[in-house]
This record gives sequence, structure tokens and C-alpha cells, in this order.
Amino acid sequence: MKKHIYIYSPSSAVRDKASFKRGLARLKALGHEVEVDEAALASHQRFAGDDETRLAAIHRAAASGADVALISRGGYGLTRILPEINYKAVAKAISKGTQFVGLSDFTAFQSALLAKTGAVTWAGPALGEDFGVEGTPDDIMEACFDDLITGQGEGAGWQLPKNAINSVANSPNKTGATGHFSIKNAVLWGGNLSVLASLVGTPYLPAVKGGILFLEDVNEHPYRVERMLAQLLHAGVLAQQKAVVLGQFTNYKLVPHDKGFKLAAVVAWLQSRVKARVLTGLPYGHVATKVLLPVGAPIALAVEGRDAFLLWGHQH
Amino acid sequence: MKKHIYIYSPSSAVRDKASFKRGLARLKALGHEVEVDEAALASHQRFAGDDETRLAAIHRAAASGADVALISRGGYGLTRILPEINYKAVAKAISKGTQFVGLSDFTAFQSALLAKTGAVTWAGPALGEDFGVEGTPDDIMEACFDDLITGQGEGAGWQLPKNAINSVANSPNKTGATGHFSIKNAVLWGGNLSVLASLVGTPYLPAVKGGILFLEDVNEHPYRVERMLAQLLHAGVLAQQKAVVLGQFTNYKLVPHDKGFKLAAVVAWLQSRVKARVLTGLPYGHVATKVLLPVGAPIALAVEGRDAFLLWGHQH
Repeated sequence: MKKHIYIYSPSSAVRDKASFKRGLARLKALGHEVEVDEAALASHQRFAGDDETRLAAIHRAAASGADVALISRGGYGLTRILPEINYKAVAKAISKGTQFVGLSDFTAFQSALLAKTGAVTWAGPALGEDFGVEGTPDDIMEACFDDLITGQGEGAGWQLPKNAINSVANSPNKTGATGHFSIKNAVLWGGNLSVLASLVGTPYLPAVKGGILFLEDVNEHPYRVERMLAQLLHAGVLAQQKAVVLGQFTNYKLVPHDKGFKLAAVVAWLQSRVKARVLTGLPYGHVATKVLLPVGAPIALAVEGRDAFLLWGHQH
Repeated sequence: MKKHIYIYSPSSAVRDKASFKRGLARLKALGHEVEVDEAALASHQRFAGDDETRLAAIHRAAASGADVALISRGGYGLTRILPEINYKAVAKAISKGTQFVGLSDFTAFQSALLAKTGAVTWAGPALGEDFGVEGTPDDIMEACFDDLITGQGEGAGWQLPKNAINSVANSPNKTGATGHFSIKNAVLWGGNLSVLASLVGTPYLPAVKGGILFLEDVNEHPYRVERMLAQLLHAGVLAQQKAVVLGQFTNYKLVPHDKGFKLAAVVAWLQSRVKARVLTGLPYGHVATKVLLPVGAPIALAVEGRDAFLLWGHQH
């Protein structure tokens, strides 16, 4: 199904032009009409153009009438322009059918938009790093993207890691948990943990109650992951969630000083501190195989043994 | 003047035993009675003992009756035990004359204590990395430490970087600034930016109005420094300060992708976003030459040309 996809750059400058071009070619090969924002390849310091340029790009994406507005890449740059984004214009575009898709630094945009308007966006791929990889893009990512643009997507499933199911069943805070449970009508939100933690205490963190919070990160040592989770905990955010779903935490290095303090230790600490269900292994993050997730949408979470499902039903 | 100094470990495990021993020897050589907490060398994962062990160490330091309670080192570990610290007991010890001194991860303790009780602690050295260096400890650091324990300290002065004075004078938000101004009776607070930012939105961030906020950090790229400053900005913290005093930001690496986005660009961005005076060059941070600063105390800030002073008058 041919769709109109708008490519723009709200965060870091595109340096890897080859990936950018491969990404465009891939989307065209999939049959789509691809429109590239005039400032998609702009560069100012480490940003894709100065603040005004990136703001204008976001607002052009909102005015594009495209089916999908897809970021060229993440990086850094949205945080500092959050006060100037026209959230109403973006929400209006979404209500007219434009799906905003992205990840990483894009979490700032998605969270702020959700906080300000309640509009739903999609945590998912970026052009260069996902569609523009050398060789063939990940088939699960592409299938999920196709689900989104055809309106066929109903959810995402994955298998919980072996030891995770035990922690769900045995945690003292989850008395009676058997590895079979479901949570219904809970708002899904989250994204990159570093970006989300940097919004705590600001008007750009959504106040989601009874929600399902999903998190991923890259280049962050487990002690930093824990410190950010502690911020969400101490700010009262985690106490208001029904579940915390951890995606992929990648590209960090343990050191001899850690002496057993690894990501699993952080997850165990988290489970000891919250009443919310804590699940792991969600195929989402800075990895090739990623599902698309509707940020701000009411969803259901179902766990049956080691099988976990996030379900949002028909979107059309 | 012989003082009783209590050494304890509230954060990371001491791995560099040689520095630890050299630090003890140096304090003894300066004529002090040095008492070492029973768990000062404890180790659990990357921590100086498990959470209960480190909490007990803090409370023993508060009960020690020492003139100074000095951390062995920073690292990571205070954030996760903030809810369980007996702040009243620490504040009582301080009212009886025990000065708590430390930095880095210790910022979490100092901020939480200030938020909960208003008690004043000192941003300053750690045992191992400052008194325990190979060769002779920094003479300014030792002189400031001596000022603290003898009650002679009246303030700290430094020379503003050459280009900084221009930015103070020329910033559109500081009309009429001439490089000669003073701010009186403002509460000094702050410390490590990463640790402080991780407290935003929690009960452990002090609500200081009309204050002077000092900040330093290590191993943080300018874009991360900016993201943390943006959190303080968007949370409304910076709007309530009369001045932001930046100390040393060290041990980060710029990359080709930055293309001119360096720390000076972050400082310029900060100055464009706040009405507070923004000063740089404070000799404080993860560097040998550091002054001691009273966190939570009312102080004065005076700038005359390129000379800057933080003044807190007689402590006795």
C-alpha cells in the first residue's frame, strides 16, 4: 500500500549520508512516496540545523499531510526546543492521520506532546539506522512498520527471559502472581530512559496514572540506569504504574569494580522497590529488531507463562 | 589544631587501598586524630557494603562526635538509600559541631539533608582522591580544609576566565551589568550536576529560592551537561536562582560530530535562557585544586572586574 512518508531531522545532524540515502531508497522500494524536508541534512554544531531550523522542520512535518512523519535519526537536540514546539499543530496533524514515528532523543518530543495534548505517537525506527542499514533491514521492524501504515497492527509479543518469569512469580510484592495475568486499559508510555529521566520535574513529563511504562537505553552503565530508575521511583512516577516493561539496554561495559553489579542486579533492586509488574526482554531499543509501540494509547498487557503481549487492538 | 576526623564510606567501595592509607597518614601527619569507621573498607558489588551497611556507617558518623565526618570516596550508592537516612540525627550531629565534608555522589546526601532539615554541610575533598594522592596534596585544598576545621574560613575567591567577564557584561539579560556587582544573603547550594539533576522532581532536591547554585561534573559530554541544565531550567529551578556558578567540568571528549558544540556553547546557551548571573571558573570539582563550600549556608557573591568571591564570613 503506497503511503506518503515525510522525512525530517529534529535532533542531531545527519553525518552518515550513505545510510540516509539507503533508507530513502528502501522506503521507495517498498512502494512509498518519500518526501524529504528541506532541512533534513542541515548542520549546525552537532544539531540538524539551529533551533529555529529544527522547530520549522517539525512544524513542516506536521503540515505535510503525510501518512507518516519519520525522523532521520536521533541523537540530541529536542530537549532544548521543547518550550517552542507547537504541540497543538502536531496533535491536529495526528488527528488528521499523520503518524509520528521515532525513538531515542525523540522520546522528549513524544513525552512532551503526550503531556501537553494526549496525542498518540509511535516509538519505532529511524530512517538511517533502521531502514538505511547495509544489507536488508530487520524483517520484524519492517513488518511492524507495515502493520502501522496499513492499520493492521494489533499488538506486539515477545518471550520473557527464563529467569524473569521466576522473579515475577516469586517477588514478595506480587503475592499470588503465577506468570499468568493481564492488565487492561492502561496507557502505554516511555521510551529512552535517559531522555525520560531528564524530563522528570518538568512540564514535559506526562502524568500517567495506572500506566504501562516501557524503557530502553544505550551506552548507559547499570549504575546509571539504576540512578535514573531511582529518580522515577523517588519522584513517585513508578508507584503510579501498573507495569514497567524493560526493553533492550545495550552497548555498556561492566568493569572489575562492579563485582556482580550488573543489569540483573538493577532489575532485582527495582522489583524490590515497586508494586508494579516488572517485565524484561521487550524487543525495543537501540537494536535492529524492534517493534513499534503506540506512546499514549490505552493498551492491554497479557502474560501467559513466558509469553508476553502488548495489545492495542485495531487502530482503524 | 588537633581535630577528630571520622572516615566512612557511604558510596562506592574503596578499591584503591594505597590512596586510602596515604590519606589517613596525611591527616595524622597534619596532627589530627583519625577514626576509621568499621565498614569503611566494606565491599558489596560496587558499593562500600550493602545498603544497610552504608546507612549504618552514615549514622555512626553522625553519632561519632567527630569534628569532621569525611567520606573515603564518592562513586555511586547514596541515591538508592536516600529514603532510609535519618536526616534528623545527622542535622543534630551538625548542630553539635560535626562538619560533614565530601563531593560527587555525596551531593545526593547534602541535597537531601538540606531539603529535609536545612542543615549545612561542606562540598569539599574526599579522603583518598584528595588527601591520599601520591606526592603532596594540593595546598589550596588543604588550606581551605584547615580554614574549615579551625573556623577561620571566610570565603573563596577566584579569577573569572577572560571571555566570561564579557559575557556577563554583554548578555541582553543583564542590562547594566558592568562586571561589578554583588549578591547578598543568598543560600549556596549545588554540587555534582549529574547527581543534582537526578534529584529533580523528588523530595531530595532542596527548594532554594533566590539562591546561588554551583555545579561541576566529570566524564560528561557538553551535550549531556546541557541536557541536565535544561532539566533544571524546565523544572523552574534556575529561574529561582540569583546566580549559577560553574566549577570544573572535566574528563570529557569532544568528537568531530560536535563541530563547535563545546562547553562554551553550552554556557552561552545557558546565559541566553536565564536571568541569573552565570559565572565560570570556580575552582571546585573533580580536580586537585578545590575550595570548600558551605552547602545550605547564606552567602554573598561579589564580582569586581575579573575577581569573584563567595563570602560566608566567620563561622564561629
